Amino acid sequence: MSASSSSTNPMSREDATTLLPSVQDKYGGVMTEMTHPMDPSLFSTLLRSSLSTWTLQGKKGVWIKLPKQLIGLAETAVKEGFWFHHAEKDYLMLVYWIPKEDDTLPANASHRVGIGAFVINHNKEVLVVQEKTGRFQGQGIWKFPTGVVNEGEDIHDGSVREVKEETGVDTEFDQILAFRQTHKAFFGKSDLFFVCMLKPLSLEINAQESEIEAAQWMPWEEYINQPFVQNYELLRYMTDICSAKTNGDYEGFTPLRVSAPDQQGNLYYNTRDLHSRN
Amino acid sequence: MSASSSSTNPMSREDATTLLPSVQDKYGGVMTEMTHPMDPSLFSTLLRSSLSTWTLQGKKGVWIKLPKQLIGLAETAVKEGFWFHHAEKDYLMLVYWIPKEDDTLPANASHRVGIGAFVINHNKEVLVVQEKTGRFQGQGIWKFPTGVVNEGEDIHDGSVREVKEETGVDTEFDQILAFRQTHKAFFGKSDLFFVCMLKPLSLEINAQESEIEAAQWMPWEEYINQPFVQNYELLRYMTDICSAKTNGDYEGFTPLRVSAPDQQGNLYYNTRDLHSRN
Repeated sequence: MSASSSSTNPMSREDATTLLPSVQDKYGGVMTEMTHPMDPSLFSTLLRSSLSTWTLQGKKGVWIKLPKQLIGLAETAVKEGFWFHHAEKDYLMLVYWIPKEDDTLPANASHRVGIGAFVINHNKEVLVVQEKTGRFQGQGIWKFPTGVVNEGEDIHDGSVREVKEETGVDTEFDQILAFRQTHKAFFGKSDLFFVCMLKPLSLEINAQESEIEAAQWMPWEEYINQPFVQNYELLRYMTDICSAKTNGDYEGFTPLRVSAPDQQGNLYYNTRDLHSRN
Repeated sequence: MSASSSSTNPMSREDATTLLPSVQDKYGGVMTEMTHPMDPSLFSTLLRSSLSTWTLQGKKGVWIKLPKQLIGLAETAVKEGFWFHHAEKDYLMLVYWIPKEDDTLPANASHRVGIGAFVINHNKEVLVVQEKTGRFQGQGIWKFPTGVVNEGEDIHDGSVREVKEETGVDTEFDQILAFRQTHKAFFGKSDLFFVCMLKPLSLEINAQESEIEAAQWMPWEEYINQPFVQNYELLRYMTDICSAKTNGDYEGFTPLRVSAPDQQGNLYYNTRDLHSRN
C-alpha cells in the first residue's frame, strides 16, 4: 500500500506507512478511497494516525469512500465518529468534520425528478395510459404518461424517453408548462414533477408490456371529464393549463443549451416573453 | 426478537424464530429494519432463511435498513447479494431483488436543488454578495445570493431564507424566472438551479460572517457590466430575463399551494397567462 494517490500534496515515505492514502479537495478536506482489502485493526490504526495528522494540518471534512466489497471497514470508521453522507449502488461515502464549528459539508441529493407528458394530436385527442402497478391500478383511470428522470438525464430527454417506452409514440419536446414540488415523497426525499408538453411525431401505440395495462388516444373532453381529474385541484389546474396551451394562450418554459462558468446546461425560460421584446 | 412488526401478514410463532422481522410494502416487497445488535452469524442464518421464505412467497424487492450503530451487519448482507440503495446520516439502506426480471426498484434521489435570488430595490439597485469560499472567492466578483434548498423545504421558502442568512435582508417571494439543469454537479448527481425574483421588504444589510465577504446594493448597470457577467452566456440570459421582468415584459412561474391525489404541494406556473383568459 502506498500514499502515492495523494495528488496535490505527496506524502513522505514515512507517512506512507502510517497514514491512509488520500487526496485533498479544494474546500480544505481530504478524501480516502479504499480500493483494496485491509485488516480492520490496521485500518483502525491508520485511520487514527491519519486523523491526528489531518487535525494538525487544519483539515476540515474527511471523506472515506468504501466500495461494497470493503463495507466491513465501515464499523471501524463509525467507531471513530464518522457518519454516512450518501451511498450509491456500489459504494458508501462516510464523512467526518474535524473543526469545532458547525460543518459546511455539502448536502446529499435531496430531490427526485419526475415528468408527466401532455401529448395531444391534431384531432384533439390526448395520449393516456392505465398503469399495471401503483396507486391507480385497476381503477380504470386514464392518465398522462409519467416517469422518473434519471440522474444525468435532461428533463426534456427524459420526457421523450418515457412516452416512447410507455406508449411507443415518438415525440418532440415543446415546453415545461408547470411544475410541482412536494415533500416526503419517498424515503423522506422531496420531489419535483414537471408537466411537459410534447408534440407527437407518430400515432401508432405499442403499450409497454411490463408497466402499462393499456394506452390510447382519448378525446380531450373525455379525459377531463373523468372524476379522477375533476376531484383534484392539482389536476384541474393542470388541465386548465394544458387547454390554455393548446389554444395558444399560455407560455411555459422552453429549454436552451447554454454555457456557464462551471459547465454546459439547459436553461428553461419563457422564450416568448424574452424574445418578443428584442 | 419477534416478527410482530409484520404489519399486514403476521407471521406464525414458528417463523418468529427463524425469520428476520419484516413489514410488507404495497409493491410486493419486504422491509427489515434492524434496531438491535445481533451476532453476524445469527443474522446470516436468519437472512438466508428469510430470503428462502420470501422467494417462495413471490416477494420482489427486499430492503434492509441498518442504523449506523449496526453497520457491522452490512458485510453479511453484501455477501448474500445485497447492494446499497441509499444512505442518510444515520442509516444505510440495502436492497436485493428476488425475481429474475430486471428490477423496478425506485431510484435514489438524483438531484440537488439550488436557488439564485434576484432582489432589486426601487433605486434599481440589486442585492449582491462576494463569497468567502468557493470558485469565485477573492476575485472581486459581485453575484446574486445563492444557496441550496434543503430536503423538505419549499423552493420559495429556501430562497427567502438564503437571502436573509447571507445579507440580513427580508424579502417576499415573487416568481421563478427560469431554471437550469446540469449534470455531474456533485458526486455524480444532477443539479436544478432556480432563478428567483424576490421583493425586498427591508434594505439594511448584515452580511453573514461565516460565508459572505461583503454584501451591498449595487446599481443594476454596474452589476451587468462586470466581465464575469458579460463573459458567460448563462449570465447574459439571466440578466436579460431579470431586466425584462423589471420592465414588466416577462412572466415566470408563481407558486400556488394545491392539493393532489397523494398530498399537498406547490404548483409553479404562469399565472398571468392562465388567469388572463378566465
